[in-house]
Amino acid sequence: MPAPKVEIYDTTLRDGSQLKGISLTVEDKLRIAHQLDYLGVDYIEGGWPGSNPKDDEFFQRAEDELKLKTSCLVAFGSTRRANSKVETDRTLANLMDSGCSVVCIVGKSWDYHVTDALQVPLEEGIAMVAESVRFLTGLGKRVFFDAEHFFDGYLNNPDYALAVLSAAAEAGAERLVLCDTNGGTLPHQVGEIVAAVCKALETPIGVHLHNDTGCGVANALAGVLNGATQVQGTINGYGERTGNCNLVPIIANLELKLGFQALPEGRLNRLTSVAHHVAELVNFTPDPQQPFVGATAFAHKAGLHTSALERRSDAYEHIQPELVGNSSQYVVSEMAGRATISRRAKDFGFDLDDATLSKVVETLKQLEYAGYHYEVADASMELLIRRLAGWQQPYFKLESYSVGVSHRSGVSPTSQVNADLAKVSPTITDEDNDLMLDSDATVKLWLGTQRIVAHGEGNGPVDALHNALMAAIGDHYPGSQAIHLTDYKVRVLDTALATKAVTRVLIDSTDGYKTWTTIGVSENIVEASWQALADSIIWGLLHMAPQQAH
Amino acid sequence: MPAPKVEIYDTTLRDGSQLKGISLTVEDKLRIAHQLDYLGVDYIEGGWPGSNPKDDEFFQRAEDELKLKTSCLVAFGSTRRANSKVETDRTLANLMDSGCSVVCIVGKSWDYHVTDALQVPLEEGIAMVAESVRFLTGLGKRVFFDAEHFFDGYLNNPDYALAVLSAAAEAGAERLVLCDTNGGTLPHQVGEIVAAVCKALETPIGVHLHNDTGCGVANALAGVLNGATQVQGTINGYGERTGNCNLVPIIANLELKLGFQALPEGRLNRLTSVAHHVAELVNFTPDPQQPFVGATAFAHKAGLHTSALERRSDAYEHIQPELVGNSSQYVVSEMAGRATISRRAKDFGFDLDDATLSKVVETLKQLEYAGYHYEVADASMELLIRRLAGWQQPYFKLESYSVGVSHRSGVSPTSQVNADLAKVSPTITDEDNDLMLDSDATVKLWLGTQRIVAHGEGNGPVDALHNALMAAIGDHYPGSQAIHLTDYKVRVLDTALATKAVTRVLIDSTDGYKTWTTIGVSENIVEASWQALADSIIWGLLHMAPQQAH
Repeated sequence: MPAPKVEIYDTTLRDGSQLKGISLTVEDKLRIAHQLDYLGVDYIEGGWPGSNPKDDEFFQRAEDELKLKTSCLVAFGSTRRANSKVETDRTLANLMDSGCSVVCIVGKSWDYHVTDALQVPLEEGIAMVAESVRFLTGLGKRVFFDAEHFFDGYLNNPDYALAVLSAAAEAGAERLVLCDTNGGTLPHQVGEIVAAVCKALETPIGVHLHNDTGCGVANALAGVLNGATQVQGTINGYGERTGNCNLVPIIANLELKLGFQALPEGRLNRLTSVAHHVAELVNFTPDPQQPFVGATAFAHKAGLHTSALERRSDAYEHIQPELVGNSSQYVVSEMAGRATISRRAKDFGFDLDDATLSKVVETLKQLEYAGYHYEVADASMELLIRRLAGWQQPYFKLESYSVGVSHRSGVSPTSQVNADLAKVSPTITDEDNDLMLDSDATVKLWLGTQRIVAHGEGNGPVDALHNALMAAIGDHYPGSQAIHLTDYKVRVLDTALATKAVTRVLIDSTDGYKTWTTIGVSENIVEASWQALADSIIWGLLHMAPQQAH
Repeated sequence: MPAPKVEIYDTTLRDGSQLKGISLTVEDKLRIAHQLDYLGVDYIEGGWPGSNPKDDEFFQRAEDELKLKTSCLVAFGSTRRANSKVETDRTLANLMDSGCSVVCIVGKSWDYHVTDALQVPLEEGIAMVAESVRFLTGLGKRVFFDAEHFFDGYLNNPDYALAVLSAAAEAGAERLVLCDTNGGTLPHQVGEIVAAVCKALETPIGVHLHNDTGCGVANALAGVLNGATQVQGTINGYGERTGNCNLVPIIANLELKLGFQALPEGRLNRLTSVAHHVAELVNFTPDPQQPFVGATAFAHKAGLHTSALERRSDAYEHIQPELVGNSSQYVVSEMAGRATISRRAKDFGFDLDDATLSKVVETLKQLEYAGYHYEVADASMELLIRRLAGWQQPYFKLESYSVGVSHRSGVSPTSQVNADLAKVSPTITDEDNDLMLDSDATVKLWLGTQRIVAHGEGNGPVDALHNALMAAIGDHYPGSQAIHLTDYKVRVLDTALATKAVTRVLIDSTDGYKTWTTIGVSENIVEASWQALADSIIWGLLHMAPQQAH
């Protein structure tokens, strides 16, 4: 008998991005969507069309660029406004325009919110839901209905809460999703209420939960154990306040402990890498304590345990870490495993002997200790393995660089951006409206036996450095001019190596066909940027078609 | 009828300190014990006497220095060794010497661990427990018994697991604590097994749980709801792997949601400050998402919610934050409206008139459009509101700055960090081992009518700029020298304003008493850093006690 299916509905891109400190670009959102598809969640809630220009651009580009293989993209919105008509409702029109075949709309199911927040009669609350669902299904959309504040509403007035659900179901909603919007419900309550709703209604039930009591994961499991067949949550539990319920441990518990199928067969071991990758994309440090996928989730410190582990692996570990793509004990990183590295090296044509493999593993450990982090920086990882196998990049040899930035008033701004910023900037005063910012770089390098000195100007030190490097090598390697830096991320890290913190720079690049990521680490942000920049250009030249490079 | 009591048993000082990255001095442990006593937990597990010199010193000094008012200090240990005598057992002797009236000893209750890890017959397993408990009670100690791997053991062989508990109870153990040592048990299983044990035995039952499934908090609540009267856990969920169950939300849920008494009357509102204080003492950043006590636990971002909050406080918050010593936070963001900003301004002591409020709202929109992001940058937000209300910072007026970074080979490294990094850096080749990195900055500014030119050197451009600024104003404002930058975060953003991306810098600062965050945005990372740096110093000077500033 196949395992019963639980649908995984991810709202990292909408609810997850409500977390303080998360601010996603459209590019970030597309890359996160790719990760979710790679993991294999059933639904990806992409955003709220019409709520801001970023979400609109996302849905537009998603249609053109995002070739989802497994997941289905969903647009989120609300029911029509109170006392108005569905035909003229902006939100519903935006949902129709989103290009998504599935839409999810939220409506009120707590009587108090209808009468006191919306200030309309309860019948109008039900009409808002029913008419909106019927309008969308009538135009061919599949509709999920998020019943806002359902658990509080059910406790206050179960008849009304159920009437709202019934109205949505009769109007054609395919899923009725019970939302714990304030997040205060405990697992035994979620279980009881989900069971009661499942008994009362035929339509498949989902749960949308938060972690305000610290029970987000347990609430989701209680929902499923009592009949819910869809769980809405976010990767790593990102979300407003204390976060949405965390899909990562929910998926692992459902599959490994409760006998449900949450992901397509064979995807569970992608859980760790996806959780870490999404953390990098939102620029948050992955939580080392995170259940199942954290770096220390299977780290054994007490000597007592580690020795006994040798005898029988399940004696001190609640699951085999490999099932979720994690590993025991080695906190360094999953990339540091010999088999992984050996396989990666073969991918780019290096058959590493045992000694070199050991050297790579050892060097990786040292570098991770120093703040390098190769999970995302695939291109730097390749260059590192090549270098340790004896390869030397043949393109250029740096002698020195210098970079200068100056800021002074009284002359015209260097660019429209700074002029625009100056108008509103809180730290630039009136007399600074003529602020002049200069960034200059000089690079001295060797192309074979030829010494080249080149200058570059830019919008900032890294741009100036990039332009100087291009001025030096661009004519010689015309293909390098096709390489563009598309993102630049910086994080300051404490390391065990140094008493001082170091700066880690990640640069994403593209040549219009491929994209790749490189890393640099130094006390000095310009030097860290240079390392990542140099790796970017070198990797780009290495992987360019020969006729393109010269 | 008084609320039924649940005992809170804290093991932050022993199990909590197993977390990677935590390394407590004896002084730290004493200070944490003080915080636990201030909160009012019933039991503080201080450590394992005899296991290391630090724990011995702690128990020694605890007896002399720690005047606990509410909590009872407990020494932890194990049963006697296999095939030996209690009278000559070192662990039991150390427990006797600890000076604690209550001791907690751990013993095996999973048959497999007795036969395969200890490699003794099951009867000897029971004898180890019974004889050890009887020895300690006979010498006047109150004894709690931690049944290791109880849940796995019960599932494998319930009769043996119960026999071990019975033996401990008959020998005089006052509490039988069921430990989920591998942490893999789910709430419904904890509930069932605790209920079965409570039915079978008279002695009060405790639970000792971990968070490996992400259900640590829910597991504790399931235990209590099924008859357990003691919960063992740690503050903030510190502990090996994914951590112990987190006492902070457990206490709040027990008292506010389930009608139990966990702390002495009137102590619950100390929860937030104790959670944060303990985080500082173990040198971990408090988790802003932590249920009940996190900085964002009651943060409201969507404008939708914040306006409705004014009407009725329980409409969008699952508890009143003040009950746990936390408070609501109104986050400023593109989604927020006038009400939020007006409230924030009141927090800073500004009662904005309608015209100014409109100006702030409009400027904020433009700034957020340009890449500013005031959710975290509370200090820059305050300075912005002050400036828009007509305030001018009186401290200094910048004329210009310039910053230079150079990288060249052939001379000694500037610092040990870069030398260490150079050894392993993948982008620094052999001849670069003598890499020289220089960062210099010059600042020209006015203190009133006095023009000052000052130079600074640093580990990078921002450090150099900071040092130059300090060289310029440090003598005039000695208080500014107490300001330290504690974190520096950079993000590159696409903005609708510019065709080019802008760089956003966030700087966290402290003067040893307060912490604050500032923001800068520019195409140029150095300029963005300057803005955040200048705001940091200005805010720090503004909020310094007058005698400190001059």
